[in-house]
Amino acid sequence: MSPAIFIDALQDELQSIKYGQDPPELYDPIQYIMSLGGKRMRPLLTLLGAYLFTDDWKKAIRPALGVEVFHNFTLMHDDIMDRAPLRRGQPTVHEKWNGNVAILSGDVMLVNAYQLLLNVEADKLAPALARFSRTAAEVCEGQQMDMNFETRWDVSEAEYIDMIRLKTSVLLGYALELGGLIGGADDETNRQLYEGGMNIGIGFQLKDDLLDVYGDPIKFGKQVGGDIIANKKTFLLIEALAQAKGTIRDELIDWLTRTEFSKPEKVSAVTAIYDQLGIRQLTETRINEYFTRGFTNFDQVNADYDRKMLLIQFARQLVERES
Amino acid sequence: MSPAIFIDALQDELQSIKYGQDPPELYDPIQYIMSLGGKRMRPLLTLLGAYLFTDDWKKAIRPALGVEVFHNFTLMHDDIMDRAPLRRGQPTVHEKWNGNVAILSGDVMLVNAYQLLLNVEADKLAPALARFSRTAAEVCEGQQMDMNFETRWDVSEAEYIDMIRLKTSVLLGYALELGGLIGGADDETNRQLYEGGMNIGIGFQLKDDLLDVYGDPIKFGKQVGGDIIANKKTFLLIEALAQAKGTIRDELIDWLTRTEFSKPEKVSAVTAIYDQLGIRQLTETRINEYFTRGFTNFDQVNADYDRKMLLIQFARQLVERES
Repeated sequence: MSPAIFIDALQDELQSIKYGQDPPELYDPIQYIMSLGGKRMRPLLTLLGAYLFTDDWKKAIRPALGVEVFHNFTLMHDDIMDRAPLRRGQPTVHEKWNGNVAILSGDVMLVNAYQLLLNVEADKLAPALARFSRTAAEVCEGQQMDMNFETRWDVSEAEYIDMIRLKTSVLLGYALELGGLIGGADDETNRQLYEGGMNIGIGFQLKDDLLDVYGDPIKFGKQVGGDIIANKKTFLLIEALAQAKGTIRDELIDWLTRTEFSKPEKVSAVTAIYDQLGIRQLTETRINEYFTRGFTNFDQVNADYDRKMLLIQFARQLVERES
Repeated sequence: MSPAIFIDALQDELQSIKYGQDPPELYDPIQYIMSLGGKRMRPLLTLLGAYLFTDDWKKAIRPALGVEVFHNFTLMHDDIMDRAPLRRGQPTVHEKWNGNVAILSGDVMLVNAYQLLLNVEADKLAPALARFSRTAAEVCEGQQMDMNFETRWDVSEAEYIDMIRLKTSVLLGYALELGGLIGGADDETNRQLYEGGMNIGIGFQLKDDLLDVYGDPIKFGKQVGGDIIANKKTFLLIEALAQAKGTIRDELIDWLTRTEFSKPEKVSAVTAIYDQLGIRQLTETRINEYFTRGFTNFDQVNADYDRKMLLIQFARQLVERES
């Protein structure tokens, strides 16, 4: 069994989903955002989770895509809130259509996500939807925290980790747990899958923050330093703000408050401050801690060795990624 | 049994619902919009529907409130899209907080609605949620149609009825059907309840359009003629546009396109055009048609006479309302 089989199955089913037709302003944006691609990490985690416990992993495909549609719904609404012009290099829905269309299409996508999740077998439907709903509310909580952080200079590491846990990681945890649930795993196993997915997810998000500053410009694919230019409250900036004292702090604040600056100059100056404060090493340490916790969770999962290796290899790719 | 018992039970449960706490920007607006009141028609329909078939109607309370939370979610998002400053005489959420808060709080409300609906018994959960999801998507379709109509002058009666059916009436139908489902009614009965609720709902919405022009200013509670002042595409305006010929049409178009006008003068001039065209009578005829269809649906429902009278009396209040 290779992950390509799961990915192909997801893509095939994605092609066949009918979100609706009329009015087109409501449904075209759904088709559009779903066609922009993405790594399909979440539904793949669901299928890998189901395959741990059953050969009939195909019954997890539609629920898995429910998680993917939900994720894309959050992107559509987050892009309105963040006034983002581009998503995966293409115009965002509120730019291509308008804000109202993006609000309402997103609303229908959230309904569509539930519709796909309704394909979970009847005896597992209530827990699958209860856990999904809890997770969905948490993702919104994380987005609100992220927005609240924009105007604060005193965000603690614990607050930041809690925000990315809610905004990003709980859904990765849920995706994997959902697979376990559909596959027939017991509650304790599903809890380990959830925790494992969540811990890997936190490491994944911290790595995102790290790569934006220290990524290889050739491999990274995006502009290195984008977060620094935008004053984005990443793990690195929050740690730097927490640790910088005296003239280093003054210099950092100066860069954060300048309205006119040379972008390359700001990126190299702030990166130099991070270097002085040992932020890179601290971030790498935290990333490793969360990845290690995640793999420890997976160790606790009692399943066929080869099948578990598929999950672990996929998680390793997330750990070792350079883009 | 009196409807007051159902209303009190709904209010008590509404007081006890915990939507969430943190971050407050996410959850305070939910508490706020739910506290603005409203007639609680939808959850009352669910309880009346359940009581037709079971003494244990209290098990329908939380699912019923799921419908009410969903309805208020649509109000929160519609108010953003319509740029409405007031809701039930109080500032709308996007005015009191901001647009982003209204988007994200609304999103969580949609999740909360599903969480409340998860209180349907396990053996009825899948159909309850499948029908709810279909209905929720239709409500969004209706809202998109309504927005599309704003820039069109050639909306047909059939299109308009279809829009209000989707935007308003299917949820009234679903609310009643949900009660039947929870109460243990069979599929055919639930279909009649749905159709009945939907037909009453269409009549109800048409009556809304009528009262805005022909309501008794003392009893109506709102400014009579508000829809005329705002050029709102109501049933009356759509019929007038479809029927007016020659100088009457020119006069109507003139009033619709003036940017400066005396409000009382516009209201009385457009009302006079409606009078000339017999729009009031036509609207009353349609209202009666839909109400009659609704009561015919209820006739088909096989349930205890006294219990059915509670539902029919409630529907009659909607028919005979003057505000």
